[in-house]
Amino acid sequence: MRLQLCTWQEVESYLQRSTGIIIPIGSTEQHGPNGLIGTDAICPETVAFGVGERIGAMVAPTLSIGMAQHHMAFPGTITFRPTTLIAVVTDVVNALARHGFDSFYFLNGHGGNIATISAAFSEIYAQSSLGTAPEDRRPVRCRLANWFMGAKVKALSKELFGDSEGRHATPSEVSLSYYAYPDAVKQAQMTPKIAPVGEIRDAADYRRQFPDGRIGSDPSLASVEAGERLYRASMEDVEADYLAFTQKGA
Amino acid sequence: MRLQLCTWQEVESYLQRSTGIIIPIGSTEQHGPNGLIGTDAICPETVAFGVGERIGAMVAPTLSIGMAQHHMAFPGTITFRPTTLIAVVTDVVNALARHGFDSFYFLNGHGGNIATISAAFSEIYAQSSLGTAPEDRRPVRCRLANWFMGAKVKALSKELFGDSEGRHATPSEVSLSYYAYPDAVKQAQMTPKIAPVGEIRDAADYRRQFPDGRIGSDPSLASVEAGERLYRASMEDVEADYLAFTQKGA
Amino acid sequence: MRLQLCTWQEVESYLQRSTGIIIPIGSTEQHGPNGLIGTDAICPETVAFGVGERIGAMVAPTLSIGMAQHHMAFPGTITFRPTTLIAVVTDVVNALARHGFDSFYFLNGHGGNIATISAAFSEIYAQSSLGTAPEDRRPVRCRLANWFMGAKVKALSKELFGDSEGRHATPSEVSLSYYAYPDAVKQAQMTPKIAPVGEIRDAADYRRQFPDGRIGSDPSLASVEAGERLYRASMEDVEADYLAFTQKGA
Amino acid sequence: MRLQLCTWQEVESYLQRSTGIIIPIGSTEQHGPNGLIGTDAICPETVAFGVGERIGAMVAPTLSIGMAQHHMAFPGTITFRPTTLIAVVTDVVNALARHGFDSFYFLNGHGGNIATISAAFSEIYAQSSLGTAPEDRRPVRCRLANWFMGAKVKALSKELFGDSEGRHATPSEVSLSYYAYPDAVKQAQMTPKIAPVGEIRDAADYRRQFPDGRIGSDPSLASVEAGERLYRASMEDVEADYLAFTQKGA
Amino acid sequence: MRLQLCTWQEVESYLQRSTGIIIPIGSTEQHGPNGLIGTDAICPETVAFGVGERIGAMVAPTLSIGMAQHHMAFPGTITFRPTTLIAVVTDVVNALARHGFDSFYFLNGHGGNIATISAAFSEIYAQSSLGTAPEDRRPVRCRLANWFMGAKVKALSKELFGDSEGRHATPSEVSLSYYAYPDAVKQAQMTPKIAPVGEIRDAADYRRQFPDGRIGSDPSLASVEAGERLYRASMEDVEADYLAFTQKGA
Amino acid sequence: MRLQLCTWQEVESYLQRSTGIIIPIGSTEQHGPNGLIGTDAICPETVAFGVGERIGAMVAPTLSIGMAQHHMAFPGTITFRPTTLIAVVTDVVNALARHGFDSFYFLNGHGGNIATISAAFSEIYAQSSLGTAPEDRRPVRCRLANWFMGAKVKALSKELFGDSEGRHATPSEVSLSYYAYPDAVKQAQMTPKIAPVGEIRDAADYRRQFPDGRIGSDPSLASVEAGERLYRASMEDVEADYLAFTQKGA
Repeated sequence: MRLQLCTWQEVESYLQRSTGIIIPIGSTEQHGPNGLIGTDAICPETVAFGVGERIGAMVAPTLSIGMAQHHMAFPGTITFRPTTLIAVVTDVVNALARHGFDSFYFLNGHGGNIATISAAFSEIYAQSSLGTAPEDRRPVRCRLANWFMGAKVKALSKELFGDSEGRHATPSEVSLSYYAYPDAVKQAQMTPKIAPVGEIRDAADYRRQFPDGRIGSDPSLASVEAGERLYRASMEDVEADYLAFTQKGA
Repeated sequence: MRLQLCTWQEVESYLQRSTGIIIPIGSTEQHGPNGLIGTDAICPETVAFGVGERIGAMVAPTLSIGMAQHHMAFPGTITFRPTTLIAVVTDVVNALARHGFDSFYFLNGHGGNIATISAAFSEIYAQSSLGTAPEDRRPVRCRLANWFMGAKVKALSKELFGDSEGRHATPSEVSLSYYAYPDAVKQAQMTPKIAPVGEIRDAADYRRQFPDGRIGSDPSLASVEAGERLYRASMEDVEADYLAFTQKGA
Repeated sequence: MRLQLCTWQEVESYLQRSTGIIIPIGSTEQHGPNGLIGTDAICPETVAFGVGERIGAMVAPTLSIGMAQHHMAFPGTITFRPTTLIAVVTDVVNALARHGFDSFYFLNGHGGNIATISAAFSEIYAQSSLGTAPEDRRPVRCRLANWFMGAKVKALSKELFGDSEGRHATPSEVSLSYYAYPDAVKQAQMTPKIAPVGEIRDAADYRRQFPDGRIGSDPSLASVEAGERLYRASMEDVEADYLAFTQKGA
Repeated sequence: MRLQLCTWQEVESYLQRSTGIIIPIGSTEQHGPNGLIGTDAICPETVAFGVGERIGAMVAPTLSIGMAQHHMAFPGTITFRPTTLIAVVTDVVNALARHGFDSFYFLNGHGGNIATISAAFSEIYAQSSLGTAPEDRRPVRCRLANWFMGAKVKALSKELFGDSEGRHATPSEVSLSYYAYPDAVKQAQMTPKIAPVGEIRDAADYRRQFPDGRIGSDPSLASVEAGERLYRASMEDVEADYLAFTQKGA
Repeated sequence: MRLQLCTWQEVESYLQRSTGIIIPIGSTEQHGPNGLIGTDAICPETVAFGVGERIGAMVAPTLSIGMAQHHMAFPGTITFRPTTLIAVVTDVVNALARHGFDSFYFLNGHGGNIATISAAFSEIYAQSSLGTAPEDRRPVRCRLANWFMGAKVKALSKELFGDSEGRHATPSEVSLSYYAYPDAVKQAQMTPKIAPVGEIRDAADYRRQFPDGRIGSDPSLASVEAGERLYRASMEDVEADYLAFTQKGA
Repeated sequence: MRLQLCTWQEVESYLQRSTGIIIPIGSTEQHGPNGLIGTDAICPETVAFGVGERIGAMVAPTLSIGMAQHHMAFPGTITFRPTTLIAVVTDVVNALARHGFDSFYFLNGHGGNIATISAAFSEIYAQSSLGTAPEDRRPVRCRLANWFMGAKVKALSKELFGDSEGRHATPSEVSLSYYAYPDAVKQAQMTPKIAPVGEIRDAADYRRQFPDGRIGSDPSLASVEAGERLYRASMEDVEADYLAFTQKGA
């Protein structure tokens, strides 16, 4: 169930049977020579919609912009400052908690979001711990799940791409985005075949180290077919994890 | 062109010929008994994608959450605090300005966003006026256009729905969202036929005044067919307005 | 009744019979060659004091500084960033609400304030809607009234100045400020007679478009006599509107 | 010269001969049984206007609301949170600095403002010290002067009221406000004759310790005549101090 | 008792007999040619540990960084912006208040902290006064004591150093820090013997006025022996003041 | 070299040969029945001082308070909100960067800090990436190293404590704090011997899951002797890592 396609009465009914919700969260940032700028939002959204349909879980609208400061030297990247992203995540949780949701499953597509989303969770929990939560907010539980780190996905990525998977603009994520938007498949030469690796700092430093945007990957291996297999693997990862999360008593 | 479906190199090329971008912005909020919670995001997104394709304009990912505090007594509504929304809009503009974009066309689907988006524009302009803009940011121009207030749309709404149009959960916006998502069409009785009107204050007061969420409207008149006509009308409004905006020298 | 000229015991008595208050809000910004920098604060203050005296309404001290970033290229202009103005308005309402005031009538003198004040109202209402209002705050109602948009004022402006009224540094507001401070009447040539019109962006852009600060107006038509007539017209507008606002049940 | 009564061209001329400005800053808070709620704003404003006229110094509009949290248990008091007041002072200085003002003389009427205004000055100076000041802002100098602590005022207060002067709702400040607004003179019995003294904490604690709002004072001794003498004494204090401040090279 | 060296069960026991706590707060900033950068943190920490041990008072970890923007032109200085320091102090108090502490005795070592800490106290009290304190927070009392302004310390400083004491990098504070860290005693020539005095503004201005960092002092007179005497004097000052503070009913 | 024990001239000299600095960062939070509340600050401080002395690296004063919201149900815990901690880390880096430091090595003692410190680094880098860094700030590099995750420490912890190490209030960290403060060694029964494990959410939930504060550990195994071995192992880990970090060209 997509929240955006429900009426409020349908949400009211849903809350009778579940207080969990999946919130896809991504980023809008360069993904190398053949990857889509929306990759990190498209991937978790696609999986979330699939899972939501299969198990009847509510799926919130995708938070498409994340913390991508390090990609800012590549045109098209949009980033929130970490403090803005904390405000965004906090507001979303507090609004939904007002209606009775209490189990927030953030399905994330961007490694660079992890620290800031975790800090946002701490900010939300701290409101409970310090007595500053919105009036009548009952205890909330937040979980950050990265689709690309699910067990079945990782196994399949390894099988499909081995050492060419890398860390950014990976053939796995590019494949999944191609599966979601087959008309957007791109072709590009990769030079070198496998991109360099290194540490992430600011945008100028990033571009110096990783001139075409990739880290450690060869996304020319990406394909719609691989994407479909990754989609199915990720649905299994996420479905199991989400059910475990929401069925554990609050 | 959808930013999310481009590579960074395609954005780099685009910037050679245009520094304008369309940013759909909406809200996630109740829309009465048969309206979708995502209506206000779906409508401008749909029009923006249409226009973007027709005239080759870049379209940013939709900002799906807006200022909807007054709808918070209806399950499913998500709101940003105005100060959060100001941070969101400011960050988006400043990130894109870093790449050379300078003409920001926010295509808005929610009346409740207007004041806060305008305040955000003032915050952005104030950075120029006070000497606190990001280094090397050249002058930016921001425009807020509400799809539902375009001349052709307003004429068509009047023709189609007359006094049943109302102010919230209107048959026009519901129709356009149905056109975008025909599988999500809902049926509901409207009691009374036309909803009451009044002033907007906080959420409890809103629900007291407008028990099913509508203001002044009869959205049972909505249809996919009307939605398609509104879509075409809005594309004409927006296309003309966007071209006038971006072709006027900075 | 001017709050500044009351004792706290007088305020305590006032609250027995009314929980409404008028808060004049303006701006400190250039008003063209013969307009006073304080015009936008002086005008609503003058009308508020008049109405306050006539109907025994409490009038808070004038908030003299508003959102005037676009006038910053003219010496003497002072602006708050929008986020500062939101904090100011929120703090004022929350402090007064602590004493039992619940109907806040902001009488505004500056078009550039409208969006930000409206956003501030949303921030205040959002506190109720999200359960984050100060403890024991009862529901509040905020109204933004622009003295220059009252029906009687608009009719009189049209009668007095017709197409020379314009949008900024209008003969109407200059007249009203002259009526309030007849010793401060200024003389200046207007070149051109009627100033150009256009869109408002940042300060440098504003000064380029509107070199002497006026938009669309010929304030050389201003006079103390016109000011007095506008004062009386505005008092009628505001008195009726304020009574309607405060007599409507909360 | 009152900034509010100047045109921008007059400010431009003023800046040719001086880059100093007097900014009256006060508070809106209870002042005991016969003191005006606006006392702390009225007093510095009155002195500032007098000095401004006598020596041709520019006087900004009065900042009428300050940090008065401790008076919040008395109706009519308005307070900013300290962080809001810091934003207000910072914005005012940065806006005026943009035009070339560099010597900011805050004439203060409220002891409770001192710490927060000083912290605001540190925030402003820190922008220079940390390299985050607005572009092209030249070094600024801020001075906080409390009218009630000038040497001539203190001597006269002692002569006029001796031990009845006290610390809050003093006969001196009440007298000066009466001189400014003789029609607002109030009569009230003081019980006890001289109010108790003690430390200031939160509002409930304050009201418990100081039931009628006074601290250590007997303001029934206040008079318009005393107010006039204090006005003249303060003008001498402030004039000398302001000239010393602005004539010292930056 | 040092909080850092207790278990939580020991804190639980302590709260049975006392709800007071000493919080040393200092600064990390230049202290002239022979003064330690940590002087302002070391001094109150040393005294607080001594007092804490003697009377069994709980001592929180030292807040070593304060508001030192004016020293930023000297290497090694670290400063918080005032707004950051307000957040720090507020968070510390609110966290400890959650456990039942209600009497917060800040033992301060830096004059430049006074205004900002006082503003922070106002922010904390304002939460009570405005109804925005954390849930169930009982009334708190905050006291700012400057070790260098205790009566016995001031008498001893005068006796030991007379006019060479000065205002910054004083022989008294340098002596006390030497007593705490005798291995860190430094030797330096003072030129001139007694440093100049003046007003404090931003960092560049400070360095221009006070080229070696001192204000009005001759810290070459500092010694471990003097430090020990000052330590004992300060312990007496602080012990008496702390006991008076915590034994006074809330 | 401890920054607090240097003069500013010594820092100036240091900067001639190194632009790196070690910043110990910890937390003030319960550590089970026999662990010290200061454990997480004491451990990295002790190691940092050791390394600093051995290799002549500058060591900043310890940031003793971190993000510990989940421990707030145990008396004595102090926490910053994540947004406060981000401000703290950002201010510290920006102040030190002003003097020429550019390589910031945060030696951390608390797992709960990791996300928020990482978010703070992103905030700092984002200032470079977005053009909002302080004027003239050259590129900075920040590294977060957790003493308890160093290779030698992990091997030794495993050897010493095996499955009794656990996740919070571990025998390793308790041992190291005992080594630093042997007079503070505590005795306590552990029931059950090894504490339960689980996920971390808010404070009430934490206390429910982990009644005595430990997670998965048996800290009754801690000893001064083990602490000394861990101290030496950690010094080796940190020394190597710090040198690699600072010797890599910026």
